[in-house]
Amino acid sequence: MDEEYLRRAIALATANVAAGGGPFGAVIVREGHVIAEGANRVTAAHDPTAHAEVVAIRAAGQALQSHDLSGCTIFASCEPCPMCLGAILWARLDRIVNAATKEDAAAAGFDDSNFYAELAKPPSARQTPMRRVLAAEGIAPLLAWRQFSAKVRY
Amino acid sequence: MDEEYLRRAIALATANVAAGGGPFGAVIVREGHVIAEGANRVTAAHDPTAHAEVVAIRAAGQALQSHDLSGCTIFASCEPCPMCLGAILWARLDRIVNAATKEDAAAAGFDDSNFYAELAKPPSARQTPMRRVLAAEGIAPLLAWRQFSAKVRY
Repeated sequence: MDEEYLRRAIALATANVAAGGGPFGAVIVREGHVIAEGANRVTAAHDPTAHAEVVAIRAAGQALQSHDLSGCTIFASCEPCPMCLGAILWARLDRIVNAATKEDAAAAGFDDSNFYAELAKPPSARQTPMRRVLAAEGIAPLLAWRQFSAKVRY
Repeated sequence: MDEEYLRRAIALATANVAAGGGPFGAVIVREGHVIAEGANRVTAAHDPTAHAEVVAIRAAGQALQSHDLSGCTIFASCEPCPMCLGAILWARLDRIVNAATKEDAAAAGFDDSNFYAELAKPPSARQTPMRRVLAAEGIAPLLAWRQFSAKVRY
């Protein structure tokens, strides 16, 4: 069954190239049912976050009316990049099934491998400069959260 | 000037707690102008990807009608999580300015620190199982992309 869902993700990826998008597709499945699909929409939607996995996760959240996708598996035509793996962790997805790898993506001109290396570095060594200021003021929202009794955790 | 924009991001974060959302805010600035703002909308929008930085990046993409945010700086009330840092890299943002840290976020109950550790592990050692199948078939979309002359790179 894994192969069947993954073939659907690969088919979405291939079809998306002909439609002018990036070569990536994803399918989210729960209890044997496809609940969401996605293909890369970065250039079409002017949205750098619209990777196939993110598009599918956002659609699954709408389908289930929940930010918590526990119990779901994501089938991705290619190994998720760090942004998408972060999204998968936050969404609490149970499992990932992929076909191509980040090295395959890099060979096709994508930055996935570089970005994994970037995230593993300390902030001061990364390509994007990071500056920290207002350390004391920055705690205020987190303290407000800790004290807010009606909060919805995620 | 950094402090002024960052205070706005912190104010968005604090206001968002009272509105029932997570304690995070972000502002994106280009050439001295605020082009987009965001606050955490994970629970309100049933969207696990709707962190303040992602919300602001998506809004900036719409404002500029581009997936490429080169020339922009993001001011984040808290150090970006791996998902958001990945989004920042893909969006080609020039610079990050933050107030709180991922350790501050962890102390308030958020998974940012854990997720940085997860991404640094090899896939087989991570909490979310990853299975690779259909390696040969998975190359097809990437080959289609390499051969598609009209592609829009990102």
